[in-house]
Amino acid sequence: MDSALRQLTASLPAGVVTSHRETLEKYRNDHIFDPAAGRPVAAARPQNIEQVQTCVRWAARHATPIVTRGAGTGLAGGARAVDGCLVLSTEKMKAVTIDSRSRVAHVEPGALNGEVKQAAAAAGLFYPPDPGSYRISSIGGNIATNAGGLCCVKYGVTSNYVLGLSVVLADGRLVRLGGPTVKNVAGLPLTQLFVGSEGVLGIIVGATLRLIVPPPDPSTVVATFPTVSAAGRAVVGSGSTSRPSMMELLDNRTINLVEDFRRAGLDRSAAAMLIAQFDNSAEAAAFETVARASEGIEVHRTDDPAEGEMFVEIRRATGPAVERLGPFLAEDIAVPIEALPDALRRIEDLAAELSLDIPVVAHAGDGNLHPAIMYRPADRSSTARAHSAFRRIAEIALSLDGTITGEHGIGRTKRPLLRQQLGDDVMNLTALIKNALDPGGLLNPGVAI
Amino acid sequence: MDSALRQLTASLPAGVVTSHRETLEKYRNDHIFDPAAGRPVAAARPQNIEQVQTCVRWAARHATPIVTRGAGTGLAGGARAVDGCLVLSTEKMKAVTIDSRSRVAHVEPGALNGEVKQAAAAAGLFYPPDPGSYRISSIGGNIATNAGGLCCVKYGVTSNYVLGLSVVLADGRLVRLGGPTVKNVAGLPLTQLFVGSEGVLGIIVGATLRLIVPPPDPSTVVATFPTVSAAGRAVVGSGSTSRPSMMELLDNRTINLVEDFRRAGLDRSAAAMLIAQFDNSAEAAAFETVARASEGIEVHRTDDPAEGEMFVEIRRATGPAVERLGPFLAEDIAVPIEALPDALRRIEDLAAELSLDIPVVAHAGDGNLHPAIMYRPADRSSTARAHSAFRRIAEIALSLDGTITGEHGIGRTKRPLLRQQLGDDVMNLTALIKNALDPGGLLNPGVAI
Repeated sequence: MDSALRQLTASLPAGVVTSHRETLEKYRNDHIFDPAAGRPVAAARPQNIEQVQTCVRWAARHATPIVTRGAGTGLAGGARAVDGCLVLSTEKMKAVTIDSRSRVAHVEPGALNGEVKQAAAAAGLFYPPDPGSYRISSIGGNIATNAGGLCCVKYGVTSNYVLGLSVVLADGRLVRLGGPTVKNVAGLPLTQLFVGSEGVLGIIVGATLRLIVPPPDPSTVVATFPTVSAAGRAVVGSGSTSRPSMMELLDNRTINLVEDFRRAGLDRSAAAMLIAQFDNSAEAAAFETVARASEGIEVHRTDDPAEGEMFVEIRRATGPAVERLGPFLAEDIAVPIEALPDALRRIEDLAAELSLDIPVVAHAGDGNLHPAIMYRPADRSSTARAHSAFRRIAEIALSLDGTITGEHGIGRTKRPLLRQQLGDDVMNLTALIKNALDPGGLLNPGVAI
Repeated sequence: MDSALRQLTASLPAGVVTSHRETLEKYRNDHIFDPAAGRPVAAARPQNIEQVQTCVRWAARHATPIVTRGAGTGLAGGARAVDGCLVLSTEKMKAVTIDSRSRVAHVEPGALNGEVKQAAAAAGLFYPPDPGSYRISSIGGNIATNAGGLCCVKYGVTSNYVLGLSVVLADGRLVRLGGPTVKNVAGLPLTQLFVGSEGVLGIIVGATLRLIVPPPDPSTVVATFPTVSAAGRAVVGSGSTSRPSMMELLDNRTINLVEDFRRAGLDRSAAAMLIAQFDNSAEAAAFETVARASEGIEVHRTDDPAEGEMFVEIRRATGPAVERLGPFLAEDIAVPIEALPDALRRIEDLAAELSLDIPVVAHAGDGNLHPAIMYRPADRSSTARAHSAFRRIAEIALSLDGTITGEHGIGRTKRPLLRQQLGDDVMNLTALIKNALDPGGLLNPGVAI
């Protein structure tokens, strides 16, 4: 261990900094495992803001890159280590306090989304954003990626709930942005600049989140369709009559994977299935009509929350059902709602063309698709075709006026595609801001910009 | 007219640029008239983005400050001219197109909020943000100030509906940020950086706005209270059982001003009145109970939308009812919801202490208060006390962990108070970003930062 690192270790309580080789292994990757991930010189697990500042000042002094991570559940390599970096894990900063009268939560970044939800629920309140990973992902990571989820089709994404942030800047200074008021337009909207900034502008060390009254028990509609396009049309049509609080799509391949994984009695022959929820029965009934008019095969509506939850669990099972098949490239494009049927059809065609297995689930109400491009790493052709599909699905999104990432972030896996979406001028604008805030380029280098 | 200006005039179609003295008068102020407002050298009224770029490039070349304005309805002096500036008015850029299938509106900045609402409604959709000025304020100005309004207590502020922006930067380059997808996390969240940036980072020349399905007909509750604190307690209490789509408070003075202005049969003796709306009758009924439990004197509930609209019109009449009294300083603080009763009481005390007339209306559900500090400009003591109250009300907000502006913006009138709220480090961070984007400091100098 070199003397600089010894200095850092000595300046923090025992156990905060580790350079133990095996321990460092678990800080090299996020959920997208890359054997070529960099090797950190050390990992720090600060217990409070002052310790984060100590780490950042040390890194600045020694020109050491910092890769911040929450729970490491990211799907874009955003928390993947680079060689020689200091990994800064927020896992020890987990406090959550609820102010039920002002309806806000004050949270530390390492608290899990599910823990925030639970603390809010205990106070009779609700924190809506619910990424698929909500039980295991940290709120700091959610903020850094502006995470979405299932209910954001009605209740919005993470940024809609971030009222205030505490951020440690690249030089170690702590700034407090926004605050516990619902509305606040004093000065530039800097709070929002950090929501979705993927660790490249500063380190989020605290947040004030807006909580709301829990929505009523949902009504649920489940419908199957003969083509993905018909399902897509039902989604487009639904949006003019109702406001679903969930509008999820599973394609035929995903339906079958879920059915393999846990027998649920799904129709294996359906081209697509929609699982939709609504805050009241009337809206659910309106969607039932739309689904039937869009060639819906079986359309089932229930006001029983327990039965509804069973269908939501089917949706949540798609993750493990796909993952147990083996490695895949996690796609996350979003398109204007109208383009949803077209995007689905083109991904289907692409899978056929490249002989790839690409099950698709989608936050369909938001036009946000998650094709999982399955491949066999040992098979060079399969791997090459998968990477080709990864690029071409991004291009499908762009050709439909969409985006290459709806909620996972750019991270390291999509960085080569970013310029194609943003163009030179926006990349340049991005660089101006990055350089202004992190002139040394030490915060999460290689990510997002 | 000097040769530089002649050059600009010649490079644009006839009528775009004017330096006619009397015409320029109307471009010197926003809604807060300041006789000491600066004198522009010219005003440009570009018809398209290219003409905006021509103006900005000209201004950059000649180191001429640019003050951008929409409809000039701002309440913080944000569009007030500075000496020697070019006023850039977006009044001629008014196109609105609705994509009803993707549920977005593509708008030019000069379109009025009400025109956007109307175009959306014609397509069966709804654009929620509704500042008091919605009939006369431009959507570009709404975006530049991140305008709020009545329904944002449930439906959110302008930033929640801005999906994409076209912005002309200080050097004349056009960047397109975000796009027509509901979710998009590609690159830094630059779209949001411009929402509420008050013209100091770039000029908004187009926007893509999210539209939603119109909410159902509202149920309305109107309640009067013996003290402002009791009304404030009802607001705090309501938030744990229901999600109002409107929760407005009028204090005794405002009730009387409205009653003077248009006889509506209001109870002139009530200390405060709440006008609340809900998307369903059950939530309205829940609030009725809360209001009665909070010492409500008269509590009236109606599911008749026409009767409800009558009460909303009473709320909307508070503006003209106050304005016809004469000049006032428009306050716009926001506090955490819990602090609302305290803030109301302290403003009441301050008015008594300084012998000032300070009617208060509030977007109470958001903790956002609009005290109107009445004064007589000819009376030096009255003016001095009013300015003292302006500062002290801001300090009340800060002492309650609130903000000096909830939705109007900092503009020029609150700039001297900003550092007190943000502190040196955030001011410094702000300057870093401003300098990166507008190194010449030509965009709306003297505003917001």
